[in-house]
Amino acid sequence: MSSEPFIDVRMKGFRERSAVADILRLIDMRTAPLGAERVPSVNAAGRVLAENIVSPVDVPGFARAAMDGFAVRAADNAPLRVVGTALPGQPFAGTLQPGCAVRIMTGAPIPAGADAIVRAEQATELNGEVRFEPEAIPGKHIVRVGEDVAKGSEVLAPGRRLRPQDLGLLAAIGVASVGVLKQPRVAILVTGDELLSPGSVPSGTRIVDSNSPMLAALIARDGGIVLGIRYVADRFEAVREAIRTANADVILVSGGSSVGQEDHAPRAVAELGELAVHGIAMKPGAPAGVGFLRDPDRVAFLLPGNPVSCLCAYDLFAGRAVRLLGGRSGEMPYRTVLLPLAAPLASAVGRVDYVRVRIVDGRVEPIAAGASNLGSTVAADGFVLVPAERETLPAGEPVEVHLYDADPH
Amino acid sequence: MSSEPFIDVRMKGFRERSAVADILRLIDMRTAPLGAERVPSVNAAGRVLAENIVSPVDVPGFARAAMDGFAVRAADNAPLRVVGTALPGQPFAGTLQPGCAVRIMTGAPIPAGADAIVRAEQATELNGEVRFEPEAIPGKHIVRVGEDVAKGSEVLAPGRRLRPQDLGLLAAIGVASVGVLKQPRVAILVTGDELLSPGSVPSGTRIVDSNSPMLAALIARDGGIVLGIRYVADRFEAVREAIRTANADVILVSGGSSVGQEDHAPRAVAELGELAVHGIAMKPGAPAGVGFLRDPDRVAFLLPGNPVSCLCAYDLFAGRAVRLLGGRSGEMPYRTVLLPLAAPLASAVGRVDYVRVRIVDGRVEPIAAGASNLGSTVAADGFVLVPAERETLPAGEPVEVHLYDADPH
Repeated sequence: MSSEPFIDVRMKGFRERSAVADILRLIDMRTAPLGAERVPSVNAAGRVLAENIVSPVDVPGFARAAMDGFAVRAADNAPLRVVGTALPGQPFAGTLQPGCAVRIMTGAPIPAGADAIVRAEQATELNGEVRFEPEAIPGKHIVRVGEDVAKGSEVLAPGRRLRPQDLGLLAAIGVASVGVLKQPRVAILVTGDELLSPGSVPSGTRIVDSNSPMLAALIARDGGIVLGIRYVADRFEAVREAIRTANADVILVSGGSSVGQEDHAPRAVAELGELAVHGIAMKPGAPAGVGFLRDPDRVAFLLPGNPVSCLCAYDLFAGRAVRLLGGRSGEMPYRTVLLPLAAPLASAVGRVDYVRVRIVDGRVEPIAAGASNLGSTVAADGFVLVPAERETLPAGEPVEVHLYDADPH
Repeated sequence: MSSEPFIDVRMKGFRERSAVADILRLIDMRTAPLGAERVPSVNAAGRVLAENIVSPVDVPGFARAAMDGFAVRAADNAPLRVVGTALPGQPFAGTLQPGCAVRIMTGAPIPAGADAIVRAEQATELNGEVRFEPEAIPGKHIVRVGEDVAKGSEVLAPGRRLRPQDLGLLAAIGVASVGVLKQPRVAILVTGDELLSPGSVPSGTRIVDSNSPMLAALIARDGGIVLGIRYVADRFEAVREAIRTANADVILVSGGSSVGQEDHAPRAVAELGELAVHGIAMKPGAPAGVGFLRDPDRVAFLLPGNPVSCLCAYDLFAGRAVRLLGGRSGEMPYRTVLLPLAAPLASAVGRVDYVRVRIVDGRVEPIAAGASNLGSTVAADGFVLVPAERETLPAGEPVEVHLYDADPH
C-alpha cells in the first residue's frame, strides 16, 4: 500500500471531459489500416483483402456441359448414333461427326464439333442410338469458355471481407494466396492488486478480474489478436514499464484509469507519449482515456475497472481502433433495431448515456443498474446510446437498440 | 475411366423430388444437439451453454464504494476528522467512530460503522479534516452485498450462446469451467477425378476444387469443426468406403450426388444406411441428398459438385444440421432485409428457387447465372428464396433478401 496522501485536486474529478463525437473523430483520424501480409487463400475466411484480385484464367477454361445428356450437332436430326462418352476430366477423344452424338455428364468438356446439349430427360437411348425432342438448340446447356469468370476480369476488390464463396472462387481461378490486412495485435494490461485471475474463487475483499476474459472475446470478435494478458502491480513504475514495453498495435489498460491515488495509467501514458483524452462525457465510462505512443506506433486505451464501463469504453473507442486497424468498418458490429421506449429514459444534456435495455413486447425497457453490475449486460438484450444533446427521452420515442447477440436468430 | 455403360433409366433424372419444407422438417426431427463437454470459461465465447449457471457467491461479496470520496456516518455533521484510507483489496482496519471519515476509492470495502459515501467532488480535505455539502445520504454510493449478483440466483440458462460479457460474469462469480454443447465434427469428402486441390492452377480439362474451402469456412461459421478434407476416387467402392469409415457427426460428400454414371454417393449411402432424400424440388441444388447412417450415428449430405448448388444445399440443409447439432438455431445465420423487386423474378410452381440478387438503390435485382457460376455469389449482395407455391413474382413485390455479409456495416 502506498503511503502517498490523497492530493485534494486529484480527487476533484476531471476538470474537463471530452465529447464522445470528438473522440471518435480523433480515433478515425489517427488510426490507419495496418500493412498487408500474404496468407493461403483457404485460410482467408473473414480476413480483409488488401489487393485487387484479377482472374489469371478463364472459368471454365474449356466449353463444358451444364447438364447430363448428349452432346450433338444442333443441325442434325435424331436419331443419332452414340459414339462415345465424355466425363469431367475425361474428354471425348475425337471430333463429333455428322449424325453422331456423345453421352456427356455435367462438367465434361464439349467434344469438338458438338454445339448443343440435349438433356437426358428429353432423350431415349436404345440400341446405340439416341432419340430426343424437342430439337437441339445451338449453344443450349453449354457453359462457354470464360462464361463464369473471364480471364483478366477483377473478381474481388481491396477492403472486401472474404466470404466462404470468395474462398471457393479464389481456388477456382488458381489464386493460392492473397494479400490481406494484418490483424491488430492487442496487449491487455490488468491493474488492481485486489484482483484474482479468472478461474479463482472471490474471497474476502479480493475480487476476480472479469474484464480480461470479456476484452479477449471482444477483441477476437473485432478481428484482433490477443497477445497476452498481463497483471501489473498498482505502482506507477510497474504500470509505466508494462505500457512502455508492450509490443502491440493496441494496448488496453484495464483499471486505474481515473484520477484517484492509484490511477497510474494516465500519467504513465502522458510521460511515455501523448495522453490525448482523459475523462469522457459519457455515463458509464467517464474515467477512460486515449493515448498515442511512438517507437513503435501504438494506441493505448485506458479502460475503467468497473466492467460495464470497461465494456462500453471498449466497444465505442478501443474496439473502433481494433476494427479500423484491421481494415474493417469502425462501427460497432451490432445489429440494430428501432423500437419505442416503454418508459421515459432519464439522461442529461452534455453527455452520452450508455443504457442497457430489455426488449419486452416490442418496447424498450431501460435497466437501472450501476457500472459495476456486469449482470445487467448479461440480462440485457442490448443498449441504447442517448446522444449528448438530448435530455430525458419521453416514453414512446423510437430509439435505436444495439443488440448484444451476433446471431440474427 | 469406368467402362460401365450409361443406363437409360439412370439418366432420366429424379423420378420424384422432395419438397424443401419436408426436408427441413426431416432434419429438425432427426437432429438433436450433441452431448456436453466442459471447457474453461475463458475459452467459451460463442459456445452454447448446456447447463444452468447459478451464482455460488454474492457479487460484491462485501459492501463497497461506487465512487471515489469519503466513507462517513450519515448522521454525523461535517467537518469530520480523516482517520485513514480504504483502497480496493486494502480495507480500513478499524471501525469508523463518530465524527470521523475515511478516504475511500471506488471498489474499496466500506469500513465498519460507515453507512454513506460522500463523493470527492463534493468534499474538501484540509488539515486532516473533510468538509462537504450537501449532507451525506445513508446508503448513497454504496454497492450492497449481492447487489450485482445474489448468491443462488440463476445468471445464465442452457441454450445461451455465450457473449463476451457472460465470460466476464462467469469469472466474477468464480465459475472456472462451464458445460457447453460439443461442436459437431464434420468430414468433407470430395469426389471428382478431374479436380485439383485448392492452390493448384487449373489446367486443360482439370479444374480446381472450389467447394471444400467454401464448405470449410461455412462449417466454421456454423460452429462445426472440420475434421479433414479427403479426395476420393470416382469409384463406387472408394466412395462407399470413405463414407463408411468417416468418423464424424456430419459427412458432406461434394460431387457425384446426382443420377449419372459416376454418381456413386447416393447408392453408397443407401447401402450403408438410409438414403432418406435424393433429389430436391429446388433450383439450383436439385441433385442433392440426405442420408442417415448408424454405428455411430451420422448424418450424410450429398452436395452437388456445381459450387452454387453446393452453397445453397449446404446453407439450407447441411448447415441446418451442423447448427442444430451444436445447439444453435437451425435458421441460416444471415441478416435479412425486406425490399421491393426491381424486375419480375421468374420462378415455377413446385420448386424453391435460390436466386442471387444485387441491391441497387434499395431495390432487388436478380442475377441470371448458372449453377456453376460461383462468381455470381461473389458479386451478389445476397439471395432470395422463392417459395414453392409461387410462380413469377412481379416487379415491386417486397422480398426477403438474405444478406451474404455477416457484418452489419
